[in-house]
Amino acid sequence: MEFLAAAIAVGLGAIGAGFGNGMIVSRTVESMARQPELRGALQTTMFIGVGIVEVVPLIAAVLAFLMYFAGV
Amino acid sequence: MEFLAAAIAVGLGAIGAGFGNGMIVSRTVESMARQPELRGALQTTMFIGVGIVEVVPLIAAVLAFLMYFAGV
Amino acid sequence: MEFLAAAIAVGLGAIGAGFGNGMIVSRTVESMARQPELRGALQTTMFIGVGIVEVVPLIAAVLAFLMYFAGV
Amino acid sequence: MEFLAAAIAVGLGAIGAGFGNGMIVSRTVESMARQPELRGALQTTMFIGVGIVEVVPLIAAVLAFLMYFAGV
Amino acid sequence: MEFLAAAIAVGLGAIGAGFGNGMIVSRTVESMARQPELRGALQTTMFIGVGIVEVVPLIAAVLAFLMYFAGV
Amino acid sequence: MEFLAAAIAVGLGAIGAGFGNGMIVSRTVESMARQPELRGALQTTMFIGVGIVEVVPLIAAVLAFLMYFAGV
Amino acid sequence: MEFLAAAIAVGLGAIGAGFGNGMIVSRTVESMARQPELRGALQTTMFIGVGIVEVVPLIAAVLAFLMYFAGV
Amino acid sequence: MEFLAAAIAVGLGAIGAGFGNGMIVSRTVESMARQPELRGALQTTMFIGVGIVEVVPLIAAVLAFLMYFAGV
Amino acid sequence: MEFLAAAIAVGLGAIGAGFGNGMIVSRTVESMARQPELRGALQTTMFIGVGIVEVVPLIAAVLAFLMYFAGV
Amino acid sequence: MEFLAAAIAVGLGAIGAGFGNGMIVSRTVESMARQPELRGALQTTMFIGVGIVEVVPLIAAVLAFLMYFAGV
Amino acid sequence: MEFLAAAIAVGLGAIGAGFGNGMIVSRTVESMARQPELRGALQTTMFIGVGIVEVVPLIAAVLAFLMYFAGV
Amino acid sequence: MEFLAAAIAVGLGAIGAGFGNGMIVSRTVESMARQPELRGALQTTMFIGVGIVEVVPLIAAVLAFLMYFAGV
Amino acid sequence: MEFLAAAIAVGLGAIGAGFGNGMIVSRTVESMARQPELRGALQTTMFIGVGIVEVVPLIAAVLAFLMYFAGV
Amino acid sequence: MEFLAAAIAVGLGAIGAGFGNGMIVSRTVESMARQPELRGALQTTMFIGVGIVEVVPLIAAVLAFLMYFAGV
Repeated sequence: MEFLAAAIAVGLGAIGAGFGNGMIVSRTVESMARQPELRGALQTTMFIGVGIVEVVPLIAAVLAFLMYFAGV
Repeated sequence: MEFLAAAIAVGLGAIGAGFGNGMIVSRTVESMARQPELRGALQTTMFIGVGIVEVVPLIAAVLAFLMYFAGV
Repeated sequence: MEFLAAAIAVGLGAIGAGFGNGMIVSRTVESMARQPELRGALQTTMFIGVGIVEVVPLIAAVLAFLMYFAGV
Repeated sequence: MEFLAAAIAVGLGAIGAGFGNGMIVSRTVESMARQPELRGALQTTMFIGVGIVEVVPLIAAVLAFLMYFAGV
Repeated sequence: MEFLAAAIAVGLGAIGAGFGNGMIVSRTVESMARQPELRGALQTTMFIGVGIVEVVPLIAAVLAFLMYFAGV
Repeated sequence: MEFLAAAIAVGLGAIGAGFGNGMIVSRTVESMARQPELRGALQTTMFIGVGIVEVVPLIAAVLAFLMYFAGV
Repeated sequence: MEFLAAAIAVGLGAIGAGFGNGMIVSRTVESMARQPELRGALQTTMFIGVGIVEVVPLIAAVLAFLMYFAGV
Repeated sequence: MEFLAAAIAVGLGAIGAGFGNGMIVSRTVESMARQPELRGALQTTMFIGVGIVEVVPLIAAVLAFLMYFAGV
Repeated sequence: MEFLAAAIAVGLGAIGAGFGNGMIVSRTVESMARQPELRGALQTTMFIGVGIVEVVPLIAAVLAFLMYFAGV
Repeated sequence: MEFLAAAIAVGLGAIGAGFGNGMIVSRTVESMARQPELRGALQTTMFIGVGIVEVVPLIAAVLAFLMYFAGV
Repeated sequence: MEFLAAAIAVGLGAIGAGFGNGMIVSRTVESMARQPELRGALQTTMFIGVGIVEVVPLIAAVLAFLMYFAGV
Repeated sequence: MEFLAAAIAVGLGAIGAGFGNGMIVSRTVESMARQPELRGALQTTMFIGVGIVEVVPLIAAVLAFLMYFAGV
Repeated sequence: MEFLAAAIAVGLGAIGAGFGNGMIVSRTVESMARQPELRGALQTTMFIGVGIVEVVPLIAAVLAFLMYFAGV
Repeated sequence: MEFLAAAIAVGLGAIGAGFGNGMIVSRTVESMARQPELRGALQTTMFIGVGIVEVVPLIAAVLAFLMYFAGV
């Protein structure tokens, strides 16, 4: 059961991170192509957003590792 | 059962946070590219919104940790 | 069973809060970029809406904590 | 079983409230940016709509609390 | 089993009411911003529609309460 | 089992009624804002449509009550 | 099992009827607002369509009643 | 098991018939509003299409009745 | 089990036929309103397409009847 | 189990054939209305496409019949 | 179990082939109506694409037949 | 269990290959109709893409055959 | 259980690879048709992206083979 | 159970990575075709985004390997 839990945690976390970051970075690339002179500001905002999106999936990944070592 | 519960909590939380923040940050980046002189105000609103969105997923992550330490 | 219930409550609450707030804040940021002089009024409405959206997910989070302490 | 029922009630209620209110408030903010002089009327309608949307989710939350205290 | 039934009834009712009312009120707010002089007529239609939409979810909520008191 | 059946009947009925009526009333409000002088005819058609949509969900609600009183 | 079957029959029937009729009536209202002088012809077609859509859900409702009285 | 089978048959049939006929009739009404002088030809095609769509759901309804009388 | 199989066969067949024919007929009606002088050719193509779409759902219906008479 | 397998095979096959052919024929009808002089070429391509789409669902139907006669 | 496996293999294969080929052929017909003089090149590409799409569903169908003869 | 596993592997592989290749080939046909003189380059890219998309579904098909021969 | 796990791993991997690569290659073909002189640069980016997308599905395929040889 | 967990982890990770990277790379290719002189900056952002998206799926893949070697 520990392994199944770790798999669900890291799997759902990967889906959440994939969609969230995919939306942010793809929009950033699109906006950067429209306003090249704003490159720095857009990238800064992207980094902040990407960092915030990754918080919960990374906690999920950490938890999955903890569960793995509890179950091994 | 404790581990499965922790995995579901943090996994669904990651999906909620990923979609919510993804929508907010991608729209902010897009708007920032359209109105560069409003950079400050848009980023402030983004931070507020992102902070509010993260509340429940972070509670989910905290609960998942508590469940993990109750189940280990 | 208590832990699973807490996980479902806080997980579905996080999804509801993430989508609801994501829609509100992203539209607010977009509108703010279109009408910068309305910044105050838009932000006030956003705060009201975000507060209302968070009511039920926060109750879900509180219930999840109660369930956790009943099950630990 | 009482806890699982409470979790399902408040979780589905949070999803319903999140989507419903998210749609209403985001459209209100958007309309307010287009017609700033109608701010009062739009906000009044928003409050009415948001209040009506919250009725059933709040009943769900109340029921979830009742179920919790019956199951604890 | 009574509690689970009550949770499903009120939960699905909340989703139905949330989507239905969300669609109605958000369109009303949008139309009101386009035709401010029709405010009264639009709001009257909105109230009728919202009332009709709430009928079945409220029956679901009443049934959920009845089930709760039968199961407690 | 009676209660679960009643919950499913009224819950799915609420979703069906919510979406159906939500589509009808929101379109009626939108059309009314575009053609204010047709208010009466549009509202008459809306009432007919809403009444037809409510037939099966109301039968579902009645059946759910019957099931409740058979199971109590 | 009789009650669960009745609930599924009438519930799915309500969803089918809600979506089908919702599509038909909302389009009719929209078309009526665009071509007010065709009111009669559009309403006649709407009644025919709505009647045809209701056939199978009403059979589902009748079957659900028959199942209820067989199971009570 | 007979009743559950009858419910699934008529329920899925109602969904199929609802969506299929909803698409056909709503498009016919829309086209009729655009080309009023083609009313007859469009309605004839609509009747043919609606009749063909109803074939399988009606067989499902007939089968559901047969299953009901085999299970009663 | 025979009845459940028959119900699934005819139910999924009804959904497939409903969507497939719904798409074909609604597009035909729409095209007919745009090019009334092609009425014959469009209707011929529609009949061919509708006939091909119905092949597998009708086989499903025939199989469901066979299963019913094997299980009765 | 043989009957359930036959039902799933022919049911999923009907859904696949319905969507696939529905897309092809509806687009063909639409294109034919835009370019009436290409009627022959479009219909030839449609027949080829429809024939290719039907291959796997017809194999599914044949398999379902084989399963039925193995299980009867 | 052999029959159920064969049904799932050929059923999912039919869905995959239906959607894939449906997309390809419908787009080809549409493009052919826009550029009639490219008929040959478009049809050649369509045949290649359709052939590639059918590879895996046909393997699924072959496997389903093998499973059927292993289970009969 | 071996057969069920083979069916799931090849079935999901067929869905993945169907959608992936369907998207690629339909876009290629559409682009080829817009830029006929680029026929060669577009087809080359299409072949590369289609080959890459088929890698994992073909591995799934090979695995399904291996599972079949292990289970027969 | 080993075979079922291998099937799920390679099946979900095929879906992920199919959608991801389908999106990338179809957009590349479309862009190449709009800017033929950028053929080299676009194809290079496509190869990089396709390579990155294939990483995790290929690991899934490798794992599936390992599981197969552990279970055979 | 170890193998099933590994399959779920790497399978969901592949879906998350496929969608996330698919969105990013396809938008980058599209933007690059619109602004060829920004090729370097867009590709840099794409690499950063793709690297961030891959973090959690790669952790999922690593965990799946660990689970495999714990279960073999």
